[in-house]
Amino acid sequence: RSESIGSSFSTYNNKYLTVPQIRPSVHFGRINGAFEPSGRMETHNNSKINNYLDGTQVEARGGTSPGGKHFRDSKRKVDYVLAYHYRKRASQHQRSIGSLGHLHRPSPLAIISNGEMGKKAQMIEMSPLDALEEEKREQREEYERNLVEAGLELEKDIENKSHGLSFVRIHAPWNVLSREAEFLKIKMPTKKMYEIKEEGGILKKLCEIWHKATKPLQPKLLTFFVSFFLGITTLIANNVYDAAYPLHDVCIHNLKHSSLASMLKLLYREWARYGAFYKYQPIDLIRKYFGEKIGLYFAWLGLYTEFLIPSSVVGIIVFLYGCITMESDIPSKEMCDQEKAFTMCPLCDKSCDYWNLSTACATARASHLFDNPATVFFSIFMALWATMFLEQWKRLQMRLGYFWDLTGLEEEEEHPRPEYETKVRQKKLKNETNKKDNIDEDEKEKLTWRDRMPGYLVNVASILFMITLTFSAVFGVTVYRITTAAALSISKNESTRSNVRVTVTATAVIINLVVILILDEIYGAVAKWLTEMEVPKTEKTFEERLILKAFLLKFVNSYAPIFYVAFFKGRFVGRPGSYVYVFDGYRMEECAPGGCLMELCIQLSIIMLGKQLIQNNLFEIGIPYLKMLFRKLKDERTEKKESDSNHSRHPQQWDLDYMLEPFTGLTPEYMEMIIQFGFVTLFVASFPLAPVFALLNNVIEVRLDAKKFVSELRRPDTVREKDIGIWYNILSGIGKFSVIINAFVISVTSDFIPRLVYQYAYSQNGTMHGFINHTLSYFNVSHLKPGTQPDNSQFEQEVVFCRYKDYREPPWSPNQYEFSKQYWSVLSARLAFVILFQNLVMFLSALVDWMIPDIPKDISEQIKKEKSMLVDFFLKEEHEKLKLIESFIMRDKHRNKGETKGRRNRAASFCQFSRSQRGSFTSFSSQHTEV
Amino acid sequence: RSESIGSSFSTYNNKYLTVPQIRPSVHFGRINGAFEPSGRMETHNNSKINNYLDGTQVEARGGTSPGGKHFRDSKRKVDYVLAYHYRKRASQHQRSIGSLGHLHRPSPLAIISNGEMGKKAQMIEMSPLDALEEEKREQREEYERNLVEAGLELEKDIENKSHGLSFVRIHAPWNVLSREAEFLKIKMPTKKMYEIKEEGGILKKLCEIWHKATKPLQPKLLTFFVSFFLGITTLIANNVYDAAYPLHDVCIHNLKHSSLASMLKLLYREWARYGAFYKYQPIDLIRKYFGEKIGLYFAWLGLYTEFLIPSSVVGIIVFLYGCITMESDIPSKEMCDQEKAFTMCPLCDKSCDYWNLSTACATARASHLFDNPATVFFSIFMALWATMFLEQWKRLQMRLGYFWDLTGLEEEEEHPRPEYETKVRQKKLKNETNKKDNIDEDEKEKLTWRDRMPGYLVNVASILFMITLTFSAVFGVTVYRITTAAALSISKNESTRSNVRVTVTATAVIINLVVILILDEIYGAVAKWLTEMEVPKTEKTFEERLILKAFLLKFVNSYAPIFYVAFFKGRFVGRPGSYVYVFDGYRMEECAPGGCLMELCIQLSIIMLGKQLIQNNLFEIGIPYLKMLFRKLKDERTEKKESDSNHSRHPQQWDLDYMLEPFTGLTPEYMEMIIQFGFVTLFVASFPLAPVFALLNNVIEVRLDAKKFVSELRRPDTVREKDIGIWYNILSGIGKFSVIINAFVISVTSDFIPRLVYQYAYSQNGTMHGFINHTLSYFNVSHLKPGTQPDNSQFEQEVVFCRYKDYREPPWSPNQYEFSKQYWSVLSARLAFVILFQNLVMFLSALVDWMIPDIPKDISEQIKKEKSMLVDFFLKEEHEKLKLIESFIMRDKHRNKGETKGRRNRAASFCQFSRSQRGSFTSFSSQHTEV
Repeated sequence: RSESIGSSFSTYNNKYLTVPQIRPSVHFGRINGAFEPSGRMETHNNSKINNYLDGTQVEARGGTSPGGKHFRDSKRKVDYVLAYHYRKRASQHQRSIGSLGHLHRPSPLAIISNGEMGKKAQMIEMSPLDALEEEKREQREEYERNLVEAGLELEKDIENKSHGLSFVRIHAPWNVLSREAEFLKIKMPTKKMYEIKEEGGILKKLCEIWHKATKPLQPKLLTFFVSFFLGITTLIANNVYDAAYPLHDVCIHNLKHSSLASMLKLLYREWARYGAFYKYQPIDLIRKYFGEKIGLYFAWLGLYTEFLIPSSVVGIIVFLYGCITMESDIPSKEMCDQEKAFTMCPLCDKSCDYWNLSTACATARASHLFDNPATVFFSIFMALWATMFLEQWKRLQMRLGYFWDLTGLEEEEEHPRPEYETKVRQKKLKNETNKKDNIDEDEKEKLTWRDRMPGYLVNVASILFMITLTFSAVFGVTVYRITTAAALSISKNESTRSNVRVTVTATAVIINLVVILILDEIYGAVAKWLTEMEVPKTEKTFEERLILKAFLLKFVNSYAPIFYVAFFKGRFVGRPGSYVYVFDGYRMEECAPGGCLMELCIQLSIIMLGKQLIQNNLFEIGIPYLKMLFRKLKDERTEKKESDSNHSRHPQQWDLDYMLEPFTGLTPEYMEMIIQFGFVTLFVASFPLAPVFALLNNVIEVRLDAKKFVSELRRPDTVREKDIGIWYNILSGIGKFSVIINAFVISVTSDFIPRLVYQYAYSQNGTMHGFINHTLSYFNVSHLKPGTQPDNSQFEQEVVFCRYKDYREPPWSPNQYEFSKQYWSVLSARLAFVILFQNLVMFLSALVDWMIPDIPKDISEQIKKEKSMLVDFFLKEEHEKLKLIESFIMRDKHRNKGETKGRRNRAASFCQFSRSQRGSFTSFSSQHTEV
Repeated sequence: RSESIGSSFSTYNNKYLTVPQIRPSVHFGRINGAFEPSGRMETHNNSKINNYLDGTQVEARGGTSPGGKHFRDSKRKVDYVLAYHYRKRASQHQRSIGSLGHLHRPSPLAIISNGEMGKKAQMIEMSPLDALEEEKREQREEYERNLVEAGLELEKDIENKSHGLSFVRIHAPWNVLSREAEFLKIKMPTKKMYEIKEEGGILKKLCEIWHKATKPLQPKLLTFFVSFFLGITTLIANNVYDAAYPLHDVCIHNLKHSSLASMLKLLYREWARYGAFYKYQPIDLIRKYFGEKIGLYFAWLGLYTEFLIPSSVVGIIVFLYGCITMESDIPSKEMCDQEKAFTMCPLCDKSCDYWNLSTACATARASHLFDNPATVFFSIFMALWATMFLEQWKRLQMRLGYFWDLTGLEEEEEHPRPEYETKVRQKKLKNETNKKDNIDEDEKEKLTWRDRMPGYLVNVASILFMITLTFSAVFGVTVYRITTAAALSISKNESTRSNVRVTVTATAVIINLVVILILDEIYGAVAKWLTEMEVPKTEKTFEERLILKAFLLKFVNSYAPIFYVAFFKGRFVGRPGSYVYVFDGYRMEECAPGGCLMELCIQLSIIMLGKQLIQNNLFEIGIPYLKMLFRKLKDERTEKKESDSNHSRHPQQWDLDYMLEPFTGLTPEYMEMIIQFGFVTLFVASFPLAPVFALLNNVIEVRLDAKKFVSELRRPDTVREKDIGIWYNILSGIGKFSVIINAFVISVTSDFIPRLVYQYAYSQNGTMHGFINHTLSYFNVSHLKPGTQPDNSQFEQEVVFCRYKDYREPPWSPNQYEFSKQYWSVLSARLAFVILFQNLVMFLSALVDWMIPDIPKDISEQIKKEKSMLVDFFLKEEHEKLKLIESFIMRDKHRNKGETKGRRNRAASFCQFSRSQRGSFTSFSSQHTEV
């Protein structure tokens, strides 16, 4: 299956190749300059003038530049946009207009001149609000000055209103990009391809490799920006800037009707609409437009969705098997048999009457849908499915990494987060004031375990508190169920009484769902707060820890009620005559007579579907839409109030993009899918239809996310990532956890084992006849505690013994009501099954893991071939270059002996070096592979 | 701990640096020639004369060349030796002497001249034996001719006897080595180091890296030979040659007294003697002398031995805990209490009497040594220990790989094995005769699943048969035990009767041990035979499959009796009155009253110790010694019979080395250790002293192996490997398997769980008092089947009820002798413990695995640093070289315009290329790392 994905990639490779933007005018001095130590402000200052957009040369063409994506000169492309709100005092407003007066015409462009305005402003007394605004302005000026000094070209709207939105548009000239690329080791080749036409064969192939390696320029360019704008996050967090984003490809609002054949258009047509749901995603294109990180997310989502297809099919078959065999199921037939009805003990004290088991016939029959031997097979299947999925993902990731040239992507030495640096500075200060000299220098530079202790403690305490909160919520809902059930069963209304269980279960699950949804939002915020408390050093660790914490909290939150129903509900009921009471008069709740599995199934399906429907549709579509509407309205109103001269101008691309929602990371997307993956694998034994619902959801989800990325979010910064990081570990952890959970669901929650034990150990004739009788214990009603008997029994017959579902000794046994031998033997069988199931599935998973190689064979062979070819090529190339130098030296020798001695020596040393280099190159390349 | 190893390496790095053999006369044309297509026999033939040892220039100095390690010219070093036995017909003998007659003196050197002898010989009629000999000679001549054509220099003894041993000594000239190294991409730098002295800082560091990368020349040289002499294995297998080996460093027989400070001497002093047992192994030196593969083995063995120290300490503590608490153990006190003695049911039919449980007091007390709560802790500890060990090994392997420059070692495209190629050829032939055109071309070239089917089937069948054989052996020993026990208990001799159990157990275990040792040898051969049957494609897959098969068979063989005792013995006994009989009159055997754990412990310790003692000492020391003695004797006798003129000559290094045992691979060494690792981890719950014995064994084993490698084996070919391959997977598999095995040993074999259950569920006062009574069921002796009662009971009192160890209903219960509720509850507890234990330990192991990073932090940082430094350096270097070329071009332009246009263009294209190369270099290096 992954083959077909691969081929679809290559189709896209051919189809949507970006036109290589060859810019031959590479400035060599610049590149060399990358090796100079930084800090030469003086020299850079000279070039600043060139970098700035020269207002006088530009025609004021207004919004007529094609697509609104260029500087006013219609040449330089806007690569990145910074947006901010400004606010001026009236006096300053006057002055700033004055200072720009020499431009003679009301140009919307301003030349920033070394914070000169700021200096003037400082001389005048300011209100606190103004002071803040002034500080922000200075920060902006400082930041923009740095950008300009780094060689970027800036265009800025003039701040001609008393307050409003202003954009800084940034263009990165090619030479800056190349220099920075080398400096930051992003490995962007400065020339697309060298051309060797005399030689075919190997070289031709080599060229292809070359081509492939150098093709994806666009994302790298954007990646460059990300690393360039380090610190912009802090500035945005401090409200100095409002937003920072690269521009979308075209005016996305006219997407449907636009005739521009842009990349975004293609994305829209091939990907971001529901009509394309049956198509493979154009992963290569997505990657090219949004970068590797987002590309990997969609590739992962695609593979996951694809993998859901077979599991859905099997799930449906298992479900159908349940439907078909329902009629022939002897236990449910026996339960429904009204002739040989069992008189059951009352379900609550006093107000409840004895009842006939046959009244629970419906739930028993429904239980069989999910409680049959096919589910055992299905949960083994799903465990292997999960392993297979993870293996295939590893392979696909490898494949994509290869085609996307990610294999060598190193974890960059990330800069510490500003928060971390602040903390370290604080520590240093404190240490200096305390004059502790016994701390060694190294420890001063970083946060030690002792410094982090308070943060960790708060973390642990908070997480424990949150988990307790979740459990309390579950307990609260349980209490609600118990009390409501009790209240309803006293009701005089017959129809109310008969529907107690349904009513209570349904309302309780809905409450559960609401609690989950609310806590989910809270926990997201708490996890972020806690991670900030921890002060992780780098952005990467921050993200990882945030994800881990958020996952832990949300996982517990989503699954706590389900775990309760699966493993705890009905297990602490006690027995007639000695019930366990939650509080006075209220017994612990029991499961329906058909077993807890049915209830688990209801719980699962409602929470899963509800979560998907509400979180996906309401939260992901509705709320952003509302937000956007609201903001639009607000902006329009402020604009109207201003009623400026510029009001009529056609909105530029950056204006339109600014209107969109900011991109806030992939974490929520992944989280949603991972929680869903949990629903699909963890409790699949109790709900074989989970994959089907997941599949349906995901087919929509893919296009929904696509739509969101294409038309509802500002274009995200391109981030290069070579894998999905911590999410893989979480997935693999869930996969492993699912084995034991499924083992327990089958053995403990379902009636599979008791049936098996009955059939092979207790049944008279090897059939299931008599199973129901076997599972019900006897109770002598005279042993009921006084005051707990049914108040006024209207039961049709005189009751001496009532029955209850448990394996206990009958009243006539010497140790009446103790657990019977059956209880222990069934328990043994259950536990033995858990051991058997877990070890079998783990063994099979290990086998699958072992048999599927992590690196696809074609990729590994390709890599080997390319490597040896490149080594050969380099050796040869190096050799020829040497020969050239040698020939020069030889000629030199002939021409002027003595004069060029110095140079000759230098050249000779080079030859010598090159010889060593040949060896070193190979050893170098070998040494650093496969690390 | 691994830090200290690391530092010991670096000590050795400084201490035992090989003196760099700088040979500046690198021939450049040669290197370029590596790119020429091979097959130019004519040109090579010209150079052949140079390659051959020119006999006339050489003084016949006899054995006086220093150390006997050089050609007769005392200059060219003997790098490799081929040895063979020849046999001549008298006529040919005459002729060959004649053809060499022109040398005028009886020089022991011969010049091989294009198989001219062979041609002559063909003209004469030959006996079949002679024909075979002739064929071999031709093969040798063919092979040697190829070597000479490849540029190697050969020296050969003259075959002046009618039959005898002859050596071909090979010297590889430097230029051949460099050429081949490049050709084979072994990445051997042709120059050791370039010298840049003007610049310090980064370059100095770089030089160090360089130095490190280029230092280990010796092993690489030998590795080169390995790849060079492809096919020698086949020739040796066909008896064309007897042996092929590189020479040892010095005359090893005088090792102790020699004053030569050679590498081998150092190895001997620092490593290969028992006196050095407390020292860290000089791994770097071992690697330098024997190559990476053997170096890794000893590093692994060292780490393993080191890791055994803490586990031994904890094991001893656990054992001591058992000793100390023995006195206070209530159950064993109760068992020994002769006042309240329990009357036990007879242990065999008729001839056995009732007996008092207090007579089994000793075993009960001994049982407590190993059957106490501390062992539970110990087995958790050992599971984590195993995980930790594997993690640390991964790290050490990484560290060694880094220091030994193995990280980039690619799995070389191995040539298919000759057997495989033969098979393919056969297939092709068959297809051609059958004229099947429907098979596609690709399938013809390789063996398909269908071709391999018979081999696989034979494999599976044989392995199943072997495993059945093992089980039969175990069953046989069981039968021996049962019958002997029965026979002995009829014995009239009182002392015989009282020692039945001890005698039977001891003899049976010894029989087991002997069977294991014999089958081990057989299985080794069978595994090899089966793997050859499979026709694996490459040598690597051959080795892997051989190891897997051999491991499977030997593992089953070693552990089957232990598994039997641990999990099956005494579980199918039946009960008094309804015993299970193996065959008429012989009951299934039971465990001693103290539980099976004691017996398991005896079984384990005897098999483990016996295997180690016999296989290590007898097989590894004794037999090789005997073999060598025998061969020496035989050789001496033949030599005497020949009584040649050369008899008196001093034996050369190659003669001495030939006397040694050939090196047959590391598989037996690893296998032995892995089986031991199994003993240490799998059943550690029953025998906490296993690590201690393993440690003692290994301390000796390290030096024993060292001694063997240094002085008893021919020097092995150096093989570069970057890891221990499949052994790691096997180790990790054993580690995982040990978790579940230990869980079962604790819960099923030991009495830990029944005690716990008694204490917390049945005991009246929460103490262990009454436990023995609780575990013994009652039996009414009148229910004994007629004919099975004790013949003439001499028991002191009248017996109505006898007791037996089981949880069954008493005779007075309605369902007498059925499993009681206790039985099921204890079983449930046992199984619950297994689940708990397994999941807890697996979780902890996963945690340990997750917490310890696979790559040591310093290494990963170092690699990152080096990589970025090298990239910087290359860019700079490249740039300067370009500037040089450009300056040449500029000068050229000034001097003669027009004339050098062509060359200028060429140079310009180079500049252009170089620009691209700069990018490409970085992108290339990035692309191919971390694959």
